[in-house]
Amino acid sequence: MPEPHADPGPGVPEIAFGPADEPWRNSFGGLSLMSGPPDVTPPSSDPRRSYASIPEIPYGQFQLPASGLTEEQYAAAENHFRSWLEQQCRVSVGFQVSGDLDYQQRLGPYLGLALNNVGDPYQSGAYTHNSKILERAVLDYFASLWNARWPHRRDDPESYWGYSLTMGASEGNLYGLWNAREYLSGQLMLHSGQDSWSSGGGRYGPAGDPAGPRSNSYHPVIFYSQDTHYSLTKATRLLGVDTFQDVGRRWFPDENPLAPGTPWPAEVPSLGGADGDGTIDIDCLAVLVDFFASRGFPILVNLNYGSTFKGAYDDVEVASRTVHEICAKHGLDERPVHHDHRGRHDDRAAEEQDGSGGFDLRTGYWVHVDGALGAGYAPYLEMARRAGLVAAAPPVFDFRLPTVHSITASGHKWMGAPWPCGIFMTRTGFQMVPPREVEYTGSSDTTLAGSRNGFSPLLMWDYLARHSYDDQARWAAECDRMAAYAESSLRALETALGLDLWVARSPFSLTVRFRRPAPWIVQKYSLSYETTHVRGQRRPCAHLFTMRHVTRDLVDALVRDLRRVGAFAAG
Amino acid sequence: MPEPHADPGPGVPEIAFGPADEPWRNSFGGLSLMSGPPDVTPPSSDPRRSYASIPEIPYGQFQLPASGLTEEQYAAAENHFRSWLEQQCRVSVGFQVSGDLDYQQRLGPYLGLALNNVGDPYQSGAYTHNSKILERAVLDYFASLWNARWPHRRDDPESYWGYSLTMGASEGNLYGLWNAREYLSGQLMLHSGQDSWSSGGGRYGPAGDPAGPRSNSYHPVIFYSQDTHYSLTKATRLLGVDTFQDVGRRWFPDENPLAPGTPWPAEVPSLGGADGDGTIDIDCLAVLVDFFASRGFPILVNLNYGSTFKGAYDDVEVASRTVHEICAKHGLDERPVHHDHRGRHDDRAAEEQDGSGGFDLRTGYWVHVDGALGAGYAPYLEMARRAGLVAAAPPVFDFRLPTVHSITASGHKWMGAPWPCGIFMTRTGFQMVPPREVEYTGSSDTTLAGSRNGFSPLLMWDYLARHSYDDQARWAAECDRMAAYAESSLRALETALGLDLWVARSPFSLTVRFRRPAPWIVQKYSLSYETTHVRGQRRPCAHLFTMRHVTRDLVDALVRDLRRVGAFAAG
Repeated sequence: MPEPHADPGPGVPEIAFGPADEPWRNSFGGLSLMSGPPDVTPPSSDPRRSYASIPEIPYGQFQLPASGLTEEQYAAAENHFRSWLEQQCRVSVGFQVSGDLDYQQRLGPYLGLALNNVGDPYQSGAYTHNSKILERAVLDYFASLWNARWPHRRDDPESYWGYSLTMGASEGNLYGLWNAREYLSGQLMLHSGQDSWSSGGGRYGPAGDPAGPRSNSYHPVIFYSQDTHYSLTKATRLLGVDTFQDVGRRWFPDENPLAPGTPWPAEVPSLGGADGDGTIDIDCLAVLVDFFASRGFPILVNLNYGSTFKGAYDDVEVASRTVHEICAKHGLDERPVHHDHRGRHDDRAAEEQDGSGGFDLRTGYWVHVDGALGAGYAPYLEMARRAGLVAAAPPVFDFRLPTVHSITASGHKWMGAPWPCGIFMTRTGFQMVPPREVEYTGSSDTTLAGSRNGFSPLLMWDYLARHSYDDQARWAAECDRMAAYAESSLRALETALGLDLWVARSPFSLTVRFRRPAPWIVQKYSLSYETTHVRGQRRPCAHLFTMRHVTRDLVDALVRDLRRVGAFAAG
Repeated sequence: MPEPHADPGPGVPEIAFGPADEPWRNSFGGLSLMSGPPDVTPPSSDPRRSYASIPEIPYGQFQLPASGLTEEQYAAAENHFRSWLEQQCRVSVGFQVSGDLDYQQRLGPYLGLALNNVGDPYQSGAYTHNSKILERAVLDYFASLWNARWPHRRDDPESYWGYSLTMGASEGNLYGLWNAREYLSGQLMLHSGQDSWSSGGGRYGPAGDPAGPRSNSYHPVIFYSQDTHYSLTKATRLLGVDTFQDVGRRWFPDENPLAPGTPWPAEVPSLGGADGDGTIDIDCLAVLVDFFASRGFPILVNLNYGSTFKGAYDDVEVASRTVHEICAKHGLDERPVHHDHRGRHDDRAAEEQDGSGGFDLRTGYWVHVDGALGAGYAPYLEMARRAGLVAAAPPVFDFRLPTVHSITASGHKWMGAPWPCGIFMTRTGFQMVPPREVEYTGSSDTTLAGSRNGFSPLLMWDYLARHSYDDQARWAAECDRMAAYAESSLRALETALGLDLWVARSPFSLTVRFRRPAPWIVQKYSLSYETTHVRGQRRPCAHLFTMRHVTRDLVDALVRDLRRVGAFAAG
């Protein structure tokens, strides 16, 4: 069955490989050759030509021969890469990540230790070299900041539960939607009339019949706005959750309530459309939610607290109250979910656990807040507002609102970290049952990953241990001022150039968007970009984020480059 | 709508908090108090009592007050934590992770830089401070080691495609199963008769009707063995994929072909059951696959290459060939998937892309290899075998087998890393369509995470740049010898104690399992454990893994502790 790999043979020219530009096969060591070369595949074409090249760091220097690199080759490559990276980080203004990092002085030694927070943060488990003690401190900190009840207690459904993400907020969004799917489709929850952990759960399956809208009660439908991060689309598809467009097209093709007779939109419109500030249009959301809630579908809503491109803050309080009130009208504010009235389920779990014929009361909706940047930043801006350092701060988004079910925030955005990380949080009473009991790790499998990055909680703990509320409120005010400065600088440039740069800044946002400049500027400053359409006109935009490392000097340098001839040549 | 949080009031005793044992609210700084305390929640009970405590590192020292910690408090806490962690890592033998790490000397500076490999590894994108150049070098290295065609080329469906995981192999398993679900359920693939990236894809929905087994052709059924890692159960549930048990119970309740009339098992039996070596029973797999393939269901099989507890190597070559041959019998070896014959799908995507009425040829099965430890280690053991350093190595598992669709391996297991990481790899022709076009990042969203850890490829690159095939073949042989040494030491102990310790080592495995000792030994050495049932008898077992950092001295120390009175008291 093994397919022999053709040797390129003497006729094929050898491809230069690695820092020494040697043919790939020359790098096998003595041992490997003792009974012929090892069973590995040579390149079938030149990787240096196949891959996108970055002129400053040519790929050949980084290719990995079987012999590894010599000390000199390693040092040259590593130095080269690091210098290039340092420069890129120094002038990066296009993404919402702080570049102001000083972890290396204190945390370098941990690169020699293996941290892995396998399983639930509150169960220490068999894998003892974890940082769960720091993780719990970080989670308690955010629970307090987000006005949840803390500490976490398994016996208190109103207390928070959460965990430190290994990916960024995209994991928090995926986990939140997964938990919401289980909750709304009637699966057993950890608190469904039982007081001990139990595994197995139910398997998910939409209760709705593809043939028609018969039993919608356990068929969740998701709503998110057009300014929503792409991770929501991805999570929705991965989980097999239906969007309102999916269900609308399938069963109500001509009944789009926003504009009867026209096709269903993929997302809830933003206020003012592409030309607006990027917040969700709550009136449109209300119309759509009413359409589906009135037909019995449980409602899953994602709200953005600091959207990706415009940095817009959805009014979580008003939007989630609106959802609640519409759901109340249709009996979806609170409903009994009978333990033997689930969709497709795991029969064994049902037999074991449902003998009671019990039920639990649940909301018929779930509101998830994607607070990637905003949930980590806005609380400090609010403190700055109360101290009179800034005039305004975004509306409430946190667990003070009984209508909010889950929140996620990135750690690498406001706090800053050398890699993506973050926090997911919900209420303990909403926790789903882990898919399976795991004896091996000595800890319940309540998180998305099996093995989890244990260095990330250490980073967040380090940051929070070293920076007080006061520090952060001051920085929040400074970043806010810097965004205002960037906006006024770009408006001044607009006037000087006599060219409409489409400069805009949404309320409270740390981002300013403007006409997309020439590629070399985009590349130099790591600008990110998006094309919007305003009244039929195509508008390629870029934006900058005034995170902590962005100084006046850096804004001025960017504006100077934007003033050069040809900076907006491509228009 | 905001629910006012009750102030505990003067009657409630203040809870001691943080290193200073001060009441929590005493830590607000001057700024925050300028117009009253900030809007945050105080603890509702004492977290130190709610959480599991580790005597060596008391929680109070690590709690995070609003003021942060003083320099002294920080230094004391960090030192304390690090000393404890160093000790735990030094004597950890229970998990398959190398503790032999020296990254800090070289890579410390990168803790001050923000690396993020957003999106596809082969598209550099707008977020320029990434390590994709190193990621590509690492992927090319593994493509060669796993005998795939490389470099990756979008225009060559036989070339590999892969990416560096942000979580561990649990992400690779999830991604592999997701891709398999899309492929087997008839969604458009990147290579479905089109030569440019296009987004949208189809939404997933089982083609099978819950009411009965009508059209099974696009309803994948998954098979994995009883020795499979729990991340497979989790991925299966998250993705809504049916196991053979799910479908068997629902539609064929009395037809379990392994033992007609008895309930369907949840997993494919392992050879010899709980008492065996942990490999999948290929005869049972064949019977089960035949049952479902003959009814038209596409077949999704996970095989383990180094199982979690027993370290067992499934015979990937024989098992996957068996699956192929059974599928061939039922027309599922290669089948045309018509672009307009999908299950529930995205109509717009269908209109745009399916006008051709085209089809592509696909296998009606997908074999995923969970090679968390084995795929990173066995190739070197095979080199050691060819050089005469060891007598035997596990069977072939890699892309030499045309019947293998995807492979995942951890980076933190064999290579060793301070946090979980890994590699996922498939063939370019099997790649699914990303859920959505993402202009913002300038890079296709082809990976599970949005933001990805860019430090992990740097770690793997560093390791591979510094260690040749020869180094690794020698280490593989040494680890193999150390496992044999541990086994013989435990057998000698068994004789000395006159107690059956159930000592066992599966072929080629780096793990030796034995009777679970007292909790203090489990805790001291981070032993992991699992209870097996042999002929009705309950057998609580532990195991050790002889990874690179495990020396004879460490094995001897463990055996000395196991010899103490009471080491097996709990029996």
